[in-house]
Amino acid sequence: MNPILRLSSSDSDFDARLKSLLAFEAAQDESIERAVSEILTAVRLEGDAAVLAYTKRFDKLEAATLADLELSRVDLDAALAGLPAEQRSALEEAAARVRAYHERQLMQSWDYVEEDGTRLGQKVTALDRAGLYVPGGKASYPSSVLMNAIPAKVAGVRELIMVVPTPRGERNPLVLAAAAVAGVDRVFTIGGAQAIGALAFGTETIPQVDKIVGPGNAYVAAAKRRVFGTVGIDMVAGPSEVLIISDASGDPDWTAMDLFAQAEHDELAQAILLCPDAGFIEKVAESIARLLPGMPRAATIAASLAHRGALIRVRDLAEACAIANRIAPEHLELAVEDPEPLIAQIHHAGAIFAGHWSVEALGDYCAGPNHVLPTSRSARFSSPLGVYDFQKRTSLIRMSKAGAQRLGRVASTLAHGEGLQAHARSAELRVEAK
Amino acid sequence: MNPILRLSSSDSDFDARLKSLLAFEAAQDESIERAVSEILTAVRLEGDAAVLAYTKRFDKLEAATLADLELSRVDLDAALAGLPAEQRSALEEAAARVRAYHERQLMQSWDYVEEDGTRLGQKVTALDRAGLYVPGGKASYPSSVLMNAIPAKVAGVRELIMVVPTPRGERNPLVLAAAAVAGVDRVFTIGGAQAIGALAFGTETIPQVDKIVGPGNAYVAAAKRRVFGTVGIDMVAGPSEVLIISDASGDPDWTAMDLFAQAEHDELAQAILLCPDAGFIEKVAESIARLLPGMPRAATIAASLAHRGALIRVRDLAEACAIANRIAPEHLELAVEDPEPLIAQIHHAGAIFAGHWSVEALGDYCAGPNHVLPTSRSARFSSPLGVYDFQKRTSLIRMSKAGAQRLGRVASTLAHGEGLQAHARSAELRVEAK
Repeated sequence: MNPILRLSSSDSDFDARLKSLLAFEAAQDESIERAVSEILTAVRLEGDAAVLAYTKRFDKLEAATLADLELSRVDLDAALAGLPAEQRSALEEAAARVRAYHERQLMQSWDYVEEDGTRLGQKVTALDRAGLYVPGGKASYPSSVLMNAIPAKVAGVRELIMVVPTPRGERNPLVLAAAAVAGVDRVFTIGGAQAIGALAFGTETIPQVDKIVGPGNAYVAAAKRRVFGTVGIDMVAGPSEVLIISDASGDPDWTAMDLFAQAEHDELAQAILLCPDAGFIEKVAESIARLLPGMPRAATIAASLAHRGALIRVRDLAEACAIANRIAPEHLELAVEDPEPLIAQIHHAGAIFAGHWSVEALGDYCAGPNHVLPTSRSARFSSPLGVYDFQKRTSLIRMSKAGAQRLGRVASTLAHGEGLQAHARSAELRVEAK
Repeated sequence: MNPILRLSSSDSDFDARLKSLLAFEAAQDESIERAVSEILTAVRLEGDAAVLAYTKRFDKLEAATLADLELSRVDLDAALAGLPAEQRSALEEAAARVRAYHERQLMQSWDYVEEDGTRLGQKVTALDRAGLYVPGGKASYPSSVLMNAIPAKVAGVRELIMVVPTPRGERNPLVLAAAAVAGVDRVFTIGGAQAIGALAFGTETIPQVDKIVGPGNAYVAAAKRRVFGTVGIDMVAGPSEVLIISDASGDPDWTAMDLFAQAEHDELAQAILLCPDAGFIEKVAESIARLLPGMPRAATIAASLAHRGALIRVRDLAEACAIANRIAPEHLELAVEDPEPLIAQIHHAGAIFAGHWSVEALGDYCAGPNHVLPTSRSARFSSPLGVYDFQKRTSLIRMSKAGAQRLGRVASTLAHGEGLQAHARSAELRVEAK
């Protein structure tokens, strides 16, 4: 394998090399764009018939009606009942913890009354319907069903509709069991851009949703971007990343394995270590070399570490935090003895795993917080998936007569300044009222 | 003028006619897309030089350096000082009220400790830098500066950078005064896709921001869509809309003027009345006919009402609320004697103006809540612009040893189920630790 890149923050070209290490351009493939545009148009115009035709063509799955592709509650419960006891209880414990954490995110309506009787507020409501895309095949993760579905149900979404392709009819029982545990309301075994179109526009059988969440391949991502506006979407995720800040107090094998856990996702995944101790970095490199051959996904890990990984020597932990803020990593592990002072210095990260016991894998499955996190530096401006993504706010304005008459003058002055005379007149009518 | 459309919810084709009334497709213009793509690439590669060249070409404004196009605090303060006293105090009162309302939206960090010592939480931080686009020319609204800038500053954004084109050097003193009142940190007199590119990628003179907000023309909207991901953006707004629900208890002139206030924005603006009383609808139609000729923007109002307006007779107020939820209007006026029961029935709206005194124009300028609201049915899944758009969350996970060792088994089971053995091993290393 290629060795993992070594950098030092004191290198004269460090800034440029860090920038090139982080660079990632999501390629936009014109042939994918054209195919997706065609599929979405067909689904919008022909509804069920188009979805059935594409499902036959892409998933080799035939059905007389789209209703035949809906799974029943019995199917989901059977999948759950069929799991080995250990898997079932792990899934249920993870769901319970994720639910408990997310319940703390629920937003509440508020209002206040001013002296003249004017009442202002913010009314919070849930989305009526949400769609959850779940990929088929090898990228099909039950944990992802929990992480996407539970916030929606905690928010109070009335109907959560999951779509999951089942090529040639092959179902993933873990995914269906997770849907049962998470409280998904309806499941259709469709996928691809046609499933996104069905959720976004609605068909005879599938109701239009208000927002679509969940990961997918390039076709699904392109389709989500295109239906944005007609429905809400979550972020389109880039490759997964971990940044580990170490003070050399930990076990190098743990650090190596934590880097592997990120790198095993795919070759584009990014795993970076920041540490002020050259000796510890050397030990981690030795652990990587020793442990890698024993990993079932060694090839993927090796490719990821070689192309996108790095072991970076920094001056001190304060500089490590500054670099972390520049990277705004999806996952940040603070593998240090005393993480509290560092937590205070971190402004941009999807999730912080503080201390040696807080390994990312716990957050991926069962610690409680969401594992859908902002990637590719977007933690500078966005947040983990949460209950708040399934709630929205409505401003509430109830003016008293006195309030309207006083503020009407202000509004009128400003409206005239903008040349909007009807705005001004509609305010003045209230000012002039007896 | 064409008469305004009359519909009744009891018409057999009502659903179809309502759907076609609401239909609005934002046209994507290929020539705009190509031009914007070229401009963004030039700004990304050539920085200041490209911005200067486009500003010369599009705005007929020449400068030796981009720094010459930055306005100073003195420029902004001079604009404010130069306003007539009434305008200045209106602007300051509006800003104070908007600030007071938005301060209630501030999100706070939280955490909790579990029995085994594990601490979970959510850390809230502000964006470092935000960009505010302000259009030049006739669509340049000082109120829009307040509504976009104040939430950012309340959130704690460290540096708020405004861009506003000044074709041929013509500045809008009201806009600059609003920037002074709102606490904008830096102002550059640039616009168009080149300004969006400068904010999104950064240049030698203009620092990269984390999010760009504010309205703009088709070029600006296309540029914002394209830089989304590199930076955050707000929603790309469609035409403005008002839906008025009347119980016939109000003054028909008020209702007519409130419809005008929406319709005067532009010909695509949409103003719709729902009322169960045919006689009142007739009176509103008479008010429209009588008042319209006196309006300075009569031509725009007439075109908007003729193409996209409607007076709709409904069975009762409950049906009016159901239709409102289907429309999910940007602005909803409840022009009724007792709005409270109706407020409870409304699930989807950008802002609710409750009662006869709560005219939309007050909300546009100075009631307090934001006037940047979700359009084109997107209130089904999105919210008014707010402080929360300039804050983001980081999940915080600090496991205790006992917590990691118990949950490590759960994570390991689930990770093996997903075929992610390095995830499993990294959790197991903690479980096995002495």
